[in-house]
Amino acid sequence: MGYRHRREDMLAAAVDVARAEGLSSLSFGRVARQVGTNDRTVVYYFPTKADLIGAVLLTLGEELQALLAEAFGEQPIPPDDLVKRAWPALARPDSQPIFALFFEIIGLAAVGATPYDVLAPAMLEQWLAWLEPRLAVDDPVERRAHALAVLARIDGLLLLRTIAGSEAAQEAARVSGLTDR
Amino acid sequence: MGYRHRREDMLAAAVDVARAEGLSSLSFGRVARQVGTNDRTVVYYFPTKADLIGAVLLTLGEELQALLAEAFGEQPIPPDDLVKRAWPALARPDSQPIFALFFEIIGLAAVGATPYDVLAPAMLEQWLAWLEPRLAVDDPVERRAHALAVLARIDGLLLLRTIAGSEAAQEAARVSGLTDR
Repeated sequence: MGYRHRREDMLAAAVDVARAEGLSSLSFGRVARQVGTNDRTVVYYFPTKADLIGAVLLTLGEELQALLAEAFGEQPIPPDDLVKRAWPALARPDSQPIFALFFEIIGLAAVGATPYDVLAPAMLEQWLAWLEPRLAVDDPVERRAHALAVLARIDGLLLLRTIAGSEAAQEAARVSGLTDR
Repeated sequence: MGYRHRREDMLAAAVDVARAEGLSSLSFGRVARQVGTNDRTVVYYFPTKADLIGAVLLTLGEELQALLAEAFGEQPIPPDDLVKRAWPALARPDSQPIFALFFEIIGLAAVGATPYDVLAPAMLEQWLAWLEPRLAVDDPVERRAHALAVLARIDGLLLLRTIAGSEAAQEAARVSGLTDR
């Protein structure tokens, strides 16, 4: 287990596998082969499959959040403006593989599959914690409710894009007042 | 293959299995055991797994649509009113198992798993065809765009409920103007 097989290398390999083949293909063996090591080395860094998948989700989430932070700017903004700024950033075709994985997790969690039934709510909480301070809503209870509503609006459009394609999602976004054309 | 093993019996058994264990547990053998027959009898009525799953989805969809038709009334209504009437009908706890299956399919379709990659868009088209004539929007292009937006709004809230629970979804619905309290 040399310096070439550090945690970051394993995580990068796991992210690659997940993007290319979905989370159902993500296993210790698959990551080990990708890095050119053995299963035990992967397990040393990620003791359970939930650790491995959780780390992949966190990495992909941070990638999206970096993209969004740029679109949102420095100051908290009203919920409607936030959704309007988020949509064009998220609607970029290159972010679709990330959402495909998010929907895979949500689908698995929906029918109670472990560890997704725990990972999906944790992923949502992480998004809420990230969103709330970016919303210009004074009351904390209302702020959380608006953060939930923002996620519901965006996830609904992304779900539509995943199933019906980009054009259908853009049409829905347009009549929802999120885009001009 | 007597009268006791008709198509309806198989379909009812398949719906039961899907509700109780998710679509990933749905197989010819599982349905055959449930009805007390053999695989070949099931295959006679549902030649492929896509036929079987497609029929289950259609049955569950029709169940939801019957519920919604009652909430919508006879006349076409504006998109916002339609979402407001749909939400309390869909937010009933007993409809959650159906949505869990819908999200399972969407998750599988998102990562390109067959036959879900074909079934999910077909399911969406069936919902659009059902919704469009219920929307009081004159222009057909706008009507379709609004039908897409209605599905995105409702699916976003249902997704939230699936992951974060009923209370979180109700909070999001409240600040989105869908409920009074």
